[in-house]
Amino acid sequence: MLKGACIFGQSGGPTSVINSSAAGVFVEALKTGCITKVYGAAHGIKGMLEEEFYDMGAESIEELMLLKNTPSSALGSVRYKLKDSEVDDTDYKRLLEVFKKYDIRYFFYNGGNDSMDTCNKVSKYMAKSGYEVKVIGVPKTIDNDLFGTDHCPGFGSAAKYVATSIMEMKLDANVYDTPMITVVEVMGRNAGWLTASSALCQDGLGPDLIYLPEVAFDTDKFIADVKATLAKNNGKCIAVVSEGIKNAEGKYIAEAMVSPTDTFGHAQLGGVASKLAGLVKDATGVKVRAIEFSLLQRCAAHLASERDVEEAFNAGATAVRLAVSGVTDKMVVFKRVMVDGEYTCEYEAMDLALAANTEKKIPQEWIINDGTYVSQEFIDYALPLIQGDSKAPLVNGLPRFAQLKKVLAKK
Amino acid sequence: MLKGACIFGQSGGPTSVINSSAAGVFVEALKTGCITKVYGAAHGIKGMLEEEFYDMGAESIEELMLLKNTPSSALGSVRYKLKDSEVDDTDYKRLLEVFKKYDIRYFFYNGGNDSMDTCNKVSKYMAKSGYEVKVIGVPKTIDNDLFGTDHCPGFGSAAKYVATSIMEMKLDANVYDTPMITVVEVMGRNAGWLTASSALCQDGLGPDLIYLPEVAFDTDKFIADVKATLAKNNGKCIAVVSEGIKNAEGKYIAEAMVSPTDTFGHAQLGGVASKLAGLVKDATGVKVRAIEFSLLQRCAAHLASERDVEEAFNAGATAVRLAVSGVTDKMVVFKRVMVDGEYTCEYEAMDLALAANTEKKIPQEWIINDGTYVSQEFIDYALPLIQGDSKAPLVNGLPRFAQLKKVLAKK
Repeated sequence: MLKGACIFGQSGGPTSVINSSAAGVFVEALKTGCITKVYGAAHGIKGMLEEEFYDMGAESIEELMLLKNTPSSALGSVRYKLKDSEVDDTDYKRLLEVFKKYDIRYFFYNGGNDSMDTCNKVSKYMAKSGYEVKVIGVPKTIDNDLFGTDHCPGFGSAAKYVATSIMEMKLDANVYDTPMITVVEVMGRNAGWLTASSALCQDGLGPDLIYLPEVAFDTDKFIADVKATLAKNNGKCIAVVSEGIKNAEGKYIAEAMVSPTDTFGHAQLGGVASKLAGLVKDATGVKVRAIEFSLLQRCAAHLASERDVEEAFNAGATAVRLAVSGVTDKMVVFKRVMVDGEYTCEYEAMDLALAANTEKKIPQEWIINDGTYVSQEFIDYALPLIQGDSKAPLVNGLPRFAQLKKVLAKK
Repeated sequence: MLKGACIFGQSGGPTSVINSSAAGVFVEALKTGCITKVYGAAHGIKGMLEEEFYDMGAESIEELMLLKNTPSSALGSVRYKLKDSEVDDTDYKRLLEVFKKYDIRYFFYNGGNDSMDTCNKVSKYMAKSGYEVKVIGVPKTIDNDLFGTDHCPGFGSAAKYVATSIMEMKLDANVYDTPMITVVEVMGRNAGWLTASSALCQDGLGPDLIYLPEVAFDTDKFIADVKATLAKNNGKCIAVVSEGIKNAEGKYIAEAMVSPTDTFGHAQLGGVASKLAGLVKDATGVKVRAIEFSLLQRCAAHLASERDVEEAFNAGATAVRLAVSGVTDKMVVFKRVMVDGEYTCEYEAMDLALAANTEKKIPQEWIINDGTYVSQEFIDYALPLIQGDSKAPLVNGLPRFAQLKKVLAKK
């Protein structure tokens, strides 16, 4: 077994359970004999480049376990795109220097598509340089759009938040005996998994219309859909739209309202619900409300899915076990195995190159009602992922999240 | 003891626990011998005028008890302002007719200031007409602005939602190593109790700045406050603003953006956070996010305060007991009694006339830091109200809310 230190970083947008994966990595690594030091990088790859990382061995196991129910990225996150090493290898040289200095032999990185790309690039460069380091990616994203895994840690909790909140909201939004349109905006740039989760709502408390980025969005059709719903539904309509809905030309509906791109070249989104709310208000004269779940859908750890929390933890622990057993250049993936009709999850490994920059979308055949709903296949897929409750202990009626000492590693 | 039927109505904006008060009224009334029939009015006073009410005796006690954790107004709500009976007594005559027809001798009405005004008017008219009916108001409002009661059912749960969500959100909003301003908008037209609840956040996870309607809002000072916070706080600032903040002339900051008034003559609000976000973005060049809690803050029953749920239930049950014992023309009020430093709540009655249309605001001496925070007195006041968890049972990982049969009373 390769002996040396390990480093773990968190990258991209936070989720309710990204810290649960961190706990899985840390707790497993700390009890693994061949791992001599356990480092947590401040702000992902940036902290590694700048030698800003914490000695996780200085934390108590109890506090690390509280990370399981602490939302967001406790070490700080980053959106930093490594250049191709053939174009500019400055960052790679620097990383190699840092790895050598601290004898880092295990590199764990937690994130979505872009982060797996980072992971893959680091792995390839180190291999080419002849520096032995085991590289394992840990998936996370509320978008659930990573290729090759049944689902992603973070999705189940966000889906549970979306479905629960829409059930509660529908009771509230339709409380008056007057017509009312509610347009709800859910995160999801190119894949509609999270938006589709609104279909999980039980007891007739789901939305009337669901619009996904997988289907070209037409504003005239939207107005017609809303009007038809109002007519058959006693003047009430709840429509859930993905932030990433696009027109037939592939342009984001919300595009005109915001600054064009983030560091990865994605259009920055948000505000599509209020834009559409204005549109249907003008078209129908009915009272309209726009609701944006914003950060809440990805950080509401108080409503996390227990299954998601546990699977996220296991993903982290599995990454360590795989690396120690000699595996490298892989991402942990989830495999669903149904045993006597009961859901179980197995943990496997897949080439990083396959995970990087590939997006998994909702199958077209799961999209029904002329592009305004999802089928029972989606429900059967997603419902097992939102099961169980798991949240931080309460102190004074409020969550007690992990409080790390964050002892900087000596330079 | 006066023998006859009782009717209960829900009015005004919903809360997470207004149905808990309904459960208290129904369960208590159904076991009270002198109450011959228990009716629940569809959409409050409107259902009474239109003879649209449900026979609550047709529901099972188990289902009625599920109302304790079902958000919004299960019977439907209404915003309907009764005219002064001296100006136009049409509605009052109609009500009297309906009361006589169904032998309604107990009238319970659940709502805020405006609803207590309705309650008071009905009570006075019936007394003047010589029709004996016991009238008891049950308070509710997330705004916590009712006069004469220590606090209002609905406030504790909304406060718990606001504090929990801001703690979670702060972890998320500040996750990157770059400057970030977050402006959060909380409900509260004229009283800042709910906005102030953001100060309940624990472990340094509260906002940096809190703006209440009780303090005249100055946009230049706001920009300066945010800049000062960014400077001392590593480029991060979280500001929580009430939807009802007003300038020195008493005009709502958000006023220009929305339609002028609702049926009670209040300005309709919303959107002040995004307006202020734009303002500070221009003034600082820093990335800004606006978050509006919208309906979620008043319907997130999954995060209800157990104390609030129980007190709301007791408020309903107390209304029935008071009425049956001969009390009328009163609203149930909460009296805080500290026993050996432990919070307890006693239930009393207060004249409806005192409750109607009077707003209780945050004492000026509790507002500190040059109008940008609240003092320990506020924390000591509000913290006991958010204690404990109480939520609907989960089925398939999602809440199982009450499903009433809603059997219409025979006309």
